[in-house]
Parts: sequence; structure tokens; C-alpha cells
Amino acid sequence: MFEQLGLIGCGLMGGSFALALKKAGLVQRVVGYSKSPTTTARALQMGVIDVEAPSALLAAAGADLVLLAVPVGATEATLKSIKHLVTPEMLIMDVGSTKADVVQAARNALGSQIASFVPAHPNTGKEVAGVEHADAELYRGAKVILTPTERTLTSHLHKAEALWQALGCDVRSMSPETHDAAFATVSHLPHMLAFAMMHSVIGQPQADAFLSVAGPGFRDFTRIAAGDPAMWRDILLANKDEVLAQAQHFQRALQAFEQALHTGDAQALEAMITLASTARAQCRFLPPAATTPTA
Amino acid sequence: MFEQLGLIGCGLMGGSFALALKKAGLVQRVVGYSKSPTTTARALQMGVIDVEAPSALLAAAGADLVLLAVPVGATEATLKSIKHLVTPEMLIMDVGSTKADVVQAARNALGSQIASFVPAHPNTGKEVAGVEHADAELYRGAKVILTPTERTLTSHLHKAEALWQALGCDVRSMSPETHDAAFATVSHLPHMLAFAMMHSVIGQPQADAFLSVAGPGFRDFTRIAAGDPAMWRDILLANKDEVLAQAQHFQRALQAFEQALHTGDAQALEAMITLASTARAQCRFLPPAATTPTA
Repeated sequence: MFEQLGLIGCGLMGGSFALALKKAGLVQRVVGYSKSPTTTARALQMGVIDVEAPSALLAAAGADLVLLAVPVGATEATLKSIKHLVTPEMLIMDVGSTKADVVQAARNALGSQIASFVPAHPNTGKEVAGVEHADAELYRGAKVILTPTERTLTSHLHKAEALWQALGCDVRSMSPETHDAAFATVSHLPHMLAFAMMHSVIGQPQADAFLSVAGPGFRDFTRIAAGDPAMWRDILLANKDEVLAQAQHFQRALQAFEQALHTGDAQALEAMITLASTARAQCRFLPPAATTPTA
Repeated sequence: MFEQLGLIGCGLMGGSFALALKKAGLVQRVVGYSKSPTTTARALQMGVIDVEAPSALLAAAGADLVLLAVPVGATEATLKSIKHLVTPEMLIMDVGSTKADVVQAARNALGSQIASFVPAHPNTGKEVAGVEHADAELYRGAKVILTPTERTLTSHLHKAEALWQALGCDVRSMSPETHDAAFATVSHLPHMLAFAMMHSVIGQPQADAFLSVAGPGFRDFTRIAAGDPAMWRDILLANKDEVLAQAQHFQRALQAFEQALHTGDAQALEAMITLASTARAQCRFLPPAATTPTA
């Protein structure tokens, strides 16, 4: 149970976190700040936050829990702006989709106060952004990856784990580097492939005729292509090296399929599809299908 | 209304067609044949068919509607085997995922009797095959593409349109060539990409760690990778030229993304993602999300 959440960034992710905490009875008061005054006003009106703060610093003041829900590129500046009100008892987390850059930003901004910081990545979201889509259930069932730094206090790590678990999340810890390689593989590259797929289709003269016969397979394969452009630009750039490395892995796999197809090697093709199909069918740990979430 | 459906191939697609026709009160009797006697017996036991036929020819005998629901590679041999019982009044359709090869097979097998043949591709299915998964609702809401040959009788085409519409399908006609190019784009290539994605992941030493954080995005992006290997081997090979051409289009689009990422060109990257995201968001014609169908 926390007394006061200082929410910095009251959009979809931050707003949903505040609503979930309130619904679970885990926080008494939420003080919120957003760069856009319209967002903060709307969050107040919706009951997502209880008090508007005029700055990130004042949102953090007196809080025992601070959540940064800002673009990852804004992490360092935001942490710097709240630095001199950070206390050892305060638990600070973020919700960024990349972690090596966030940890580096925290090192640069916080110095020894990094002990309070538990970098977090809840793997959930929606295709639509903004506090108006905030949802107390957004985090339920989500995987949350914590990437504690070598100086993060264990007590804070445990508090963070308990908090996300209380919101119904499946929590695990790994290094920032493993996190970023993993997400390049199962999220960032798939997004780039889905974006490229849409480009490939709409760049052809018969695009409308082609799209007119698209079915459920295309719908699901390209769902993630509808993601927010500014957010995905930032994620791809922040994790550029890992994404490009994964793109190379993918290209080699695709070329093997093209080669088998080109030579008409039915046996090789079937063996390769069988391997893929079996691996996918064994992904029992994937969350069940739903209509809205992204990742 | 039909008196007798001759069903050749009593698996998922054929069995579901028989059940849908029966449920809609559109057929009086279903005579079925499958290459595997176990399948035919199971179809009879489930009430999918009313009479077991010992051969494709005897399934077609006396039918006013014949459905071929066999692998596309078996189309020519199957049509040849029923040829001398084909009457001008008989409506013959298939459910194959490729059409230029099916039309060629029909030309080779049927001669002038091709007037009875309306090539059809209902864009639906499940990841699981077999008559035990047959479902009277499988075709509801599906897009069905008819690719009549230049010698198909208009009266048969209209009968086919009315039949699929009565099953709740969205019916359209196009040339076999446009069909195959369209499906290479929105179905066959996406399947190959999803297969390649799974290969790319499982070929890496950290595959298990990577897959352990996969979320809804990866789940939906790779859903179609779980497709039936023998069926997808046949589809990709049958539509090889179009699939390879679409793979080239896709590779060029992907390389443009890699280039923007490599050079850190944030503006170009955002513009490209915006184009993809907008195009995907405008795909209003796509069927709503569901948990089981494939395409």
C-alpha cells in the first residue's frame, strides 16, 4: 500500500496504472503531471489523478511511489528534474519499452539515488494513445519485465514485484541487455516487418484489389502495423542495434524459404514449415487472443 | 436448393461445407468420399454425410452439386475421375487456395464439361485440420472469391454466388491471375514471413528467454505460422512465382526501413511508419478479430 503516487505522464500507460492502483486499493492519492496541460486536466476530470501538479518535480514531491510514463527519450531529463526530491524510501519506476537506454539515462541523472529506481516494462498497450483510453484492466495478465541496475536496492525490487503482481501481472527480472535483445526479437522486429508489409502492399498499383480479399490471417499479421508512429520511431531508434541484428537473422531465414521455393524443393519446404508450425503451436505461454491490446 | 451434394474430401473444409448446407436447409442428401476410409466413416458417424461412396466417381454420380475439397495438387486427377458422370446441369466447385493452377487442371481434365465448373476460394479455415473440427459456421462472414473460366456457364456462376451468399459469405469474382497475385500478397507471403519469423527466433541460442517475454503482438503476428505444413507447402509451391515476386516487393520495403534505422533518420522512419499505420487503420473491410479462423 502506497500513500501517494507521483504520476509523471498521465496518458494511456500512466493513466491506466493510476486507475489500476486505485481499483486494487493500493494507493491513497495520485498527484499527476503531464507535459500537456490538457492531458492533466482530462486526467483530473476522469478521476485518474486526484491532484494536478504544475511540474514533474512537484508531482514527485512527497510521493512514496513515482511512475514515469513518458517517452523513453525523455527519461533522463525527467529524472534530472525530480532528482533533488528523491528519497531513499521512494520507489521510482518507468514503463519504457527499451531498457539499456533507460538504465543509462538513470545512471546519468540519478547518481547514487539510482538505488530507488526499478526499471520496468509492462508488455501491454493499445493501438490508441491518450488518457481517454486509460483502462484499469490494461495491466491484468500482462508480462512485466523488471531490469534492476546493480545498485537498485533489493527491498525496492521486491516492493516493485509485489506491486505488479497485485495488479495481476506476470513479473520476471532480467538484465537490460537481455531484455532489449528479447524485445527486438519478439516485438520490435515484428512491428518493423508489419510496417514493411503494409508498405509493400500499398506501393503496388493493384493494392486496393489485393486488400479487398484480405482475411483474418492478414488482419492479425498486420494488427501491430497500426501502432503509434512517434512511439515506434522512438522504440526502433532506441533499440536500433538489436533490431538491425534481428533483421539480419530474419533475412537469412526468409532467404532459406525463398531458396526452397525457388528450386521447388517440396521436401525442404515442408520440413521448414513443420519446424515453424511446431514451434508456434508450442508457444503455450502466449496470452490468449483478445481484441485490443498491442505489444 | 440442391437435391444431392457429392462431397469429395470430407475434411475440415468439405465437412464444414456439408454441415453449413444442411443447417441452411439447402441440400437434401450428402454423399461423401474421402481418400482415407477413416475420414469418410467419421464424417458419416458425425452426420456430416448421409451416405458413404466408395469412390469420387460414385460420390458425384447423380449429384446436382459437387464440391471438391481436396489438396489443389489432386484437382486434375479428381476431376478426371468424375469426368464421365459430369452433366451440364451439375454445378462443380472447389475450395482451393490457388486458382490459376486449378483452372488449368480443370481445362486439362474436363474439356467442354468445364462449363459446369465454378472455381471457388472461400478465405477461411482453422489451424486444425480434419473432419472432427468441421463446423457449420466456418464459412459465415468469409470472403469467397469465384474465378470463373471463360467457358463457365453464367447460370452456374449465378447459382454458385447465390449458394455462398446463402451461407453468409461475401462473394466476389475476379480472374484466376488477379486472385493468385492478391493472395500471394495478403495471405501466402504473410504466411511465409510468419514461418521465417519462427525460424529466426528458434535458431538463436536465447530463443527460450526471448519467447518467454512474447506478448499479444507476437501472438497475433505469428498465429498463421501454426498452419498445416503439407497444405502450406502445396499452396506456396502452387503459387510460387507470385509469392517470390511479392517477397521481392517486401524485401525492398524492409530494406528501406533498415536503411532509415541504420542512418538514424528519425524523420524518414516516422513518415514511413505513419504511412503503414494509416493504411492499416483504414483497412475497415477486414473481418473482426476472432480466436480460431485462419486464412
